[in-house]
Amino acid sequence: MPAHQPSESFILVASGSDFPLDNLPYGVFSTSANPTRRIGVAIGDQVLDLSALTDKFLNHELFIKNNKNVFAQSTLNDFMSLGRDAWATARQTLTRILSATEPDLRDDESLRGRAFVKQSDATMHLPCHIGDYTDFYSSREHATNVGTMFRGADNALPPNWLHLPIGYHGRASSIVVSGTDIRRPVGQTRPDESKPPVYGPCKALDFELEMAFFVGPGNPLGQPIPIEKAHEHIFGMVLMNDWSARDIQKWEYQPLGPFLGKSFATTISPWIVTMDALAPFLVDNVPQSPAVLPYLQHTDRFSYDIRLRVDLQGTDLFGQRPVSVSNFKYLYWTMKQQLAHHTSNGCNLRPGDLLGSGTISGPAKSERGSLLELSWGSKEPMDLGNGVTRTFLRDGDTVTLNGVCDNGSIRLGFGPCTGKVLPALEI
Amino acid sequence: MPAHQPSESFILVASGSDFPLDNLPYGVFSTSANPTRRIGVAIGDQVLDLSALTDKFLNHELFIKNNKNVFAQSTLNDFMSLGRDAWATARQTLTRILSATEPDLRDDESLRGRAFVKQSDATMHLPCHIGDYTDFYSSREHATNVGTMFRGADNALPPNWLHLPIGYHGRASSIVVSGTDIRRPVGQTRPDESKPPVYGPCKALDFELEMAFFVGPGNPLGQPIPIEKAHEHIFGMVLMNDWSARDIQKWEYQPLGPFLGKSFATTISPWIVTMDALAPFLVDNVPQSPAVLPYLQHTDRFSYDIRLRVDLQGTDLFGQRPVSVSNFKYLYWTMKQQLAHHTSNGCNLRPGDLLGSGTISGPAKSERGSLLELSWGSKEPMDLGNGVTRTFLRDGDTVTLNGVCDNGSIRLGFGPCTGKVLPALEI
Repeated sequence: MPAHQPSESFILVASGSDFPLDNLPYGVFSTSANPTRRIGVAIGDQVLDLSALTDKFLNHELFIKNNKNVFAQSTLNDFMSLGRDAWATARQTLTRILSATEPDLRDDESLRGRAFVKQSDATMHLPCHIGDYTDFYSSREHATNVGTMFRGADNALPPNWLHLPIGYHGRASSIVVSGTDIRRPVGQTRPDESKPPVYGPCKALDFELEMAFFVGPGNPLGQPIPIEKAHEHIFGMVLMNDWSARDIQKWEYQPLGPFLGKSFATTISPWIVTMDALAPFLVDNVPQSPAVLPYLQHTDRFSYDIRLRVDLQGTDLFGQRPVSVSNFKYLYWTMKQQLAHHTSNGCNLRPGDLLGSGTISGPAKSERGSLLELSWGSKEPMDLGNGVTRTFLRDGDTVTLNGVCDNGSIRLGFGPCTGKVLPALEI
Repeated sequence: MPAHQPSESFILVASGSDFPLDNLPYGVFSTSANPTRRIGVAIGDQVLDLSALTDKFLNHELFIKNNKNVFAQSTLNDFMSLGRDAWATARQTLTRILSATEPDLRDDESLRGRAFVKQSDATMHLPCHIGDYTDFYSSREHATNVGTMFRGADNALPPNWLHLPIGYHGRASSIVVSGTDIRRPVGQTRPDESKPPVYGPCKALDFELEMAFFVGPGNPLGQPIPIEKAHEHIFGMVLMNDWSARDIQKWEYQPLGPFLGKSFATTISPWIVTMDALAPFLVDNVPQSPAVLPYLQHTDRFSYDIRLRVDLQGTDLFGQRPVSVSNFKYLYWTMKQQLAHHTSNGCNLRPGDLLGSGTISGPAKSERGSLLELSWGSKEPMDLGNGVTRTFLRDGDTVTLNGVCDNGSIRLGFGPCTGKVLPALEI
């Protein structure tokens, strides 16, 4: 008999589903019958439409913002802004009314008819308005791999890397939801340093296996969030593929960092898994040496055991091939440290801001989180079987990220984060 | 007799005002009597409240978006999104009804009472929602100065500099309107490379003299804007002070670019001067050698003669001191090139996005656009008279940018872009 009897819902949840009652991730969806964007929660293969519940179950005063119910909105920003008490109350309510033993929703056939939509009938959208998007560089293995390729093993990690979570501002406008096709970018590159640069389709298109978190309550400009309170500002997490044009990036990025090599598209999974759902998967943080400065120190655990996988499908492949497995727990810097550092200068975060982890590579070769690393800068093309190889992505390739938590008694997942590469536009 | 007889308004415009009838910049304001944010146009020392004119003068079908009048909004985004025909029609209408010879508004005392507000009674706000903010690095003199200090004169310009307009994603949340106080940031620096980094108030706080333009109509993700059409997407310009913490920036910026050294605050002037108002000040572009790639080539003039000045006021100074004069026309890369490059990879711009020029330095020493350059990395402190010097900004310093266009017959300006430095928070 297992130590934990999984909670059960009256909604059938197939074995191995990413969305058992223990998960309850939030997203924004519409249907062809009702194109209005609205907030839902995934349960099994269904979406529970929260806009249908605001009168009967989600009418708590905690859920009112600007005189409106936060679940009667087309984005999650207002709900995110409310903070942990409101999040916990919503989770308790949803867990209760979805439970097999609770009749309130289970036996209300009329409401059930209005409130449930099959996921296969739902079109998912970005879950919120993303005001600003920041991407960190928090995997030591990734930074070491890239640094070794570019600067040699002796200078792999930049001198600041162990002292602060390096990050940069990304492009918010080009963040798209899973399932959106990705147009191969065109750009300026300099393949031969003895010749002038050229303009044309990217020849080194890559994925980056990342995760990202959404900010809940923000902070006023000029008022840092101390590390002791950082977790209060973290709403939940998604998978993220930070598509990268390595050849464009290589030529453009000195001295101000990545720009067009990244800003053509960033894909996120549509369902935000909350920190409450992820709590059972907390693990010890990665030890940090040298010790970090006090404003970045915390002793509470804030690393998570989230198993990550990247699959590739292509026109030259039969079916999907796994190309990388990794784990969120490998990250050197925690989300609390990222958030405290980000606001340490007074920079204001706003509800719905997205903070990415950077590519999550692990210590093993098979755990590298990008083709750049997996093919070691094209020197070691990946063998996908039957004579098929990859250095970078081909047109028609579909990249799918998955993330699963499983502690032996509870198992939940993020749902896929996927995108297909379309050929570049003619120039 | 001057070649051009300045147009006159029935509103008194003092000689030397930044806001004659030839200007008509757009902004968003409120008053203590009416705290609703609304769109206005500056004329002399008055604001013309466009929300008061939507029934009578600004009811053109061109001004309707999503069934609403774009001038009955709290931001300019919808008006910006309409494009050049709507912008021209609005300008014609406003020019006409404000003219001394036109009775429609002049003689409607009731409407005049509702439609005009003294600028001294108006609180200015950000003119629009800024979805994404990008900052370029387009002054050759600035890049050369900084490169010489950091890498020596022989390697001053990075190898890509003459081939593409280098830019990076900035932080949108911390853009503030002129008049907002600036809290000195706290952060991690490494003043002594033989010792570990330290945490504390920034000791090298700087201004950057910049201008920036707002995007009008955007582009769908994946569809670049060709250089031939770039000007159709540029709505207007403001002054910008890109406050910089040089010591934080220096330690953090490798390899992903500026982050917390910039994201604590960026100040813009509140009035957007339109490209139509700036047309009389077009001048020849800076010659580019080597020739740029075709996607960046244009032969039409898109450089502007805008005289820029930075003034400093401090607790150790009597009155303001000019510390820099420069000119927008010095920029090597044009706004058309910046916009075409930005979208060349398919990155989508949205109405209200802000694209900054980077620090605008000129060839003369007095034309350097930052204290970093003016004090040559603290080696040559600026002499402000009476024994007062500056390397970087002191608490209590107020930095004010001004910009003026004057072709001998038309003179207009941008209004001030100002901010005062407050002491760092206790840590």
